[in-house]
Amino acid sequence: MINIKNDKVIKAFGRRLRDLRISNGLSQEQLANMAEIPLSQVGRIERGEVNPTLSTISVLATALNIQIIDLFLI
Amino acid sequence: MINIKNDKVIKAFGRRLRDLRISNGLSQEQLANMAEIPLSQVGRIERGEVNPTLSTISVLATALNIQIIDLFLI
Repeated sequence: MINIKNDKVIKAFGRRLRDLRISNGLSQEQLANMAEIPLSQVGRIERGEVNPTLSTISVLATALNIQIIDLFLI
Repeated sequence: MINIKNDKVIKAFGRRLRDLRISNGLSQEQLANMAEIPLSQVGRIERGEVNPTLSTISVLATALNIQIIDLFLI
């Protein structure tokens, strides 16, 4: 079910996450600790290498002190 | 990693998806066909029983002719 369009969505999400993490002055390790997910997963999500679940998206938003919707704003 | 808060997010997403599907006059089967995902998955997502991936969220938004962000607006 992952087609080219979804690949773009996943990569765009990763870039957005990375931008928000950096603008918050956080390292990948700090964000991973705050979201309670593996450090390697943060890197893979930011590079668009994995298809994150809504649950993971939610814990990342909470860790960044933002709403889920903010992760999809350009 | 799924805690009570995420469960609420997943259930809220399911309710939002159901509302948008119905307001578009679509059956679960029609939405499943348009999104090219199994009918049973649409029902489980709407009931908040599964944790959808970003890819699935994306195909559902495309099928409903909306942006991903619209699925997280209340």
